[in-house]
Amino acid sequence: MPETYRVGLLGHGTVGAAFEALLAERADAIAHITGFKPEISGVLTRSRGDFAEILSGSDLIVELIGGIEPARDYVLDAMRAGKHVVSANKLLLASYGEELWSVARANGVQLRFEGAVAGVVPVIRVLQESLAGAHVERIHGIVNGTTNFILTEMARAGATYESALHRAQELGYAEADPTDDVSGGDAAAKLAILATVAFGSRVPLEWVEVEGIEGVVPEHVQAARALDMKVKLLARATLADGRVDARVGPAFVDVHHPLAAVEGPFNAVMLQGDAIREITLEGPGAGGIETASAVVADLVSIVGTSGTGFLQDDPVWRELERLPPGELASPWYLRLTVDDRAGVLERLAHELAAEGVSVARLVQQPVDGHATLHVVTHEAPAGRVERALAAIRALPESRGDADAIPVVSERGVEELGWA
Amino acid sequence: MPETYRVGLLGHGTVGAAFEALLAERADAIAHITGFKPEISGVLTRSRGDFAEILSGSDLIVELIGGIEPARDYVLDAMRAGKHVVSANKLLLASYGEELWSVARANGVQLRFEGAVAGVVPVIRVLQESLAGAHVERIHGIVNGTTNFILTEMARAGATYESALHRAQELGYAEADPTDDVSGGDAAAKLAILATVAFGSRVPLEWVEVEGIEGVVPEHVQAARALDMKVKLLARATLADGRVDARVGPAFVDVHHPLAAVEGPFNAVMLQGDAIREITLEGPGAGGIETASAVVADLVSIVGTSGTGFLQDDPVWRELERLPPGELASPWYLRLTVDDRAGVLERLAHELAAEGVSVARLVQQPVDGHATLHVVTHEAPAGRVERALAAIRALPESRGDADAIPVVSERGVEELGWA
Repeated sequence: MPETYRVGLLGHGTVGAAFEALLAERADAIAHITGFKPEISGVLTRSRGDFAEILSGSDLIVELIGGIEPARDYVLDAMRAGKHVVSANKLLLASYGEELWSVARANGVQLRFEGAVAGVVPVIRVLQESLAGAHVERIHGIVNGTTNFILTEMARAGATYESALHRAQELGYAEADPTDDVSGGDAAAKLAILATVAFGSRVPLEWVEVEGIEGVVPEHVQAARALDMKVKLLARATLADGRVDARVGPAFVDVHHPLAAVEGPFNAVMLQGDAIREITLEGPGAGGIETASAVVADLVSIVGTSGTGFLQDDPVWRELERLPPGELASPWYLRLTVDDRAGVLERLAHELAAEGVSVARLVQQPVDGHATLHVVTHEAPAGRVERALAAIRALPESRGDADAIPVVSERGVEELGWA
Repeated sequence: MPETYRVGLLGHGTVGAAFEALLAERADAIAHITGFKPEISGVLTRSRGDFAEILSGSDLIVELIGGIEPARDYVLDAMRAGKHVVSANKLLLASYGEELWSVARANGVQLRFEGAVAGVVPVIRVLQESLAGAHVERIHGIVNGTTNFILTEMARAGATYESALHRAQELGYAEADPTDDVSGGDAAAKLAILATVAFGSRVPLEWVEVEGIEGVVPEHVQAARALDMKVKLLARATLADGRVDARVGPAFVDVHHPLAAVEGPFNAVMLQGDAIREITLEGPGAGGIETASAVVADLVSIVGTSGTGFLQDDPVWRELERLPPGELASPWYLRLTVDDRAGVLERLAHELAAEGVSVARLVQQPVDGHATLHVVTHEAPAGRVERALAAIRALPESRGDADAIPVVSERGVEELGWA
């Protein structure tokens, strides 16, 4: 007879209920693998259960409440009581990760959180175990299924942002209030966790520059297609000269890049570094069953390794600085709308050159008396591009907004076609 | 001061040398994570080192000799002496896996082999840890970088198989004698290991049906493109009614399938099951540094968990049967070359219908007095398609070979366009 391993469950929403069912279904298999049979020792919701009682009767606490409080208190109390914790709470980890990991280390317990990041895609495990000691230098991720569904729908059907969002809501891929997803907030929290684990350094949520997809228009999608690219909401973290840049926002992704093929409500993360070159992990985004599956996997790892003190969330910790936000360089796509008259192109070119932004490709389209210019630049720091755009917006010939969207490509911008 | 962990290295070719260098580079980081600092205690090659001496002076043996003997004897001796083993030897694992795992269990040692399967892509770890207790039902993989490079080159440049192979050899992606790669033999060994771990059952190498890419011609690549598909050498293992089908061969893969986007010398594996739906892992194929990186990750896991008896290669073992080779159903692409005269289409249709093979799409092209027919069928068992083709080849109107290539799509064949 395998010994019983007592699991206290905090929260019983969609993920909590899916976790309880999945754990029951797999309990025998887990007992076979680990020698311990997991069993729910208590469930805490707003209306039932007592935390102190559940804590004292459990070997491990699974936190699926979400939000900061009371989840943070419960998790801290559990670890201080010597209990291992599995959490899928991205906001909590992104906001208080440093405190939580330090309490875990101080109390010799494990804190695992695969379900917080990319649904069923085991990117935290791969970072902590397969890549232990490897140098990950760049993370590129599509970590929000709602926005990827909306952007895929805009590309597929030529839909506007509003109608694609409406369709996502009808199909259950977007919530009635989609703000946290479409604003990039959800992706930013996940990126802060990913970057912290990958770089082994504090990357607080406040460091992540965030732009949502609300400003993506069909013209962007068309321009991307003409360049053999796709518009994606990318979460990117980069080590540049030993400093960290982290940002979430729309990007033009070359169709030959592995992330361009990630469609609908899927998540994917690409990790790049020296020895590994690049690894891409892809799978369904965070639905109830997918997150529950990640939580069970974390639980299995703890049940099997608890007491060994090993493979805990104890990276080679260091204190990296933040790269000032405007310094990260990349190629850019610019869309500029101006009066269609002699000399205007020269003035635009002048403003770009004044900031050292050099043009790789340019297409001019006449539209009703004005002109839309589609520009792809060579690599330029974000701050310089922003300054050039501000100057262009201030020109008397400027009509409407001047946008800049970073271009992500494994090839040089010279090789991008303009179909 | 961390304790020393003594690593005996068998074999010092490309991978062995890369491993030795990488281990030295990461030794401090590994010591920080695990509390033990790995150190090479001895190296065995044909010309130096003594196995018995290395064995007695090591805590763990890394086997990078390749081939069956003497690697098998060394690995068995090491495990019987209570030493953990990391091996990247796919042929050994695919041929003697059952014996090796049973000796590992009997001696309470770990046997890890991530480097044997898909380079730096951590598919074995994900199967054994993230998916512990999950039900994986299908594996689709591109697990040979040489053939994927050749097929990508044929698609990109319209090259023949021979010229694409030549280019692969020039660039170092194919060996002077490419037989093991292009015949599908390398992929078959990897698939046998993957299927064994994923299904928790013996899947011997002899069960894998193998077809290479030597017969892929530019017309296949063109026909695939017209269907919005790509030709890939797929390694596929399927649980059908509790029985195992495993096969390696060319397939037409829908461009919307994640594996269609895997280009050049890359590897990728898609795992499908109930709770996980699908996870795809992609990364560079097995070069020296990639394989060495996987070996180091295995070593780190063992150093950290040794003595706990956990997360060993001890799946929920069962004895599954093999699905008879002709029974696995899929849609098919057929290419038939026949005389261009009245009544021939009817005869072809008759032979297909006689085997219950139903046509979803058909395009007929006149070519110099004969006609090439491109057919996509609905799902049909391989055996029936083979019999229908044999009957068609025997028709007096038949010209040249009649080919069948399975179609892999997440969508129904009705949705495939014919551009």
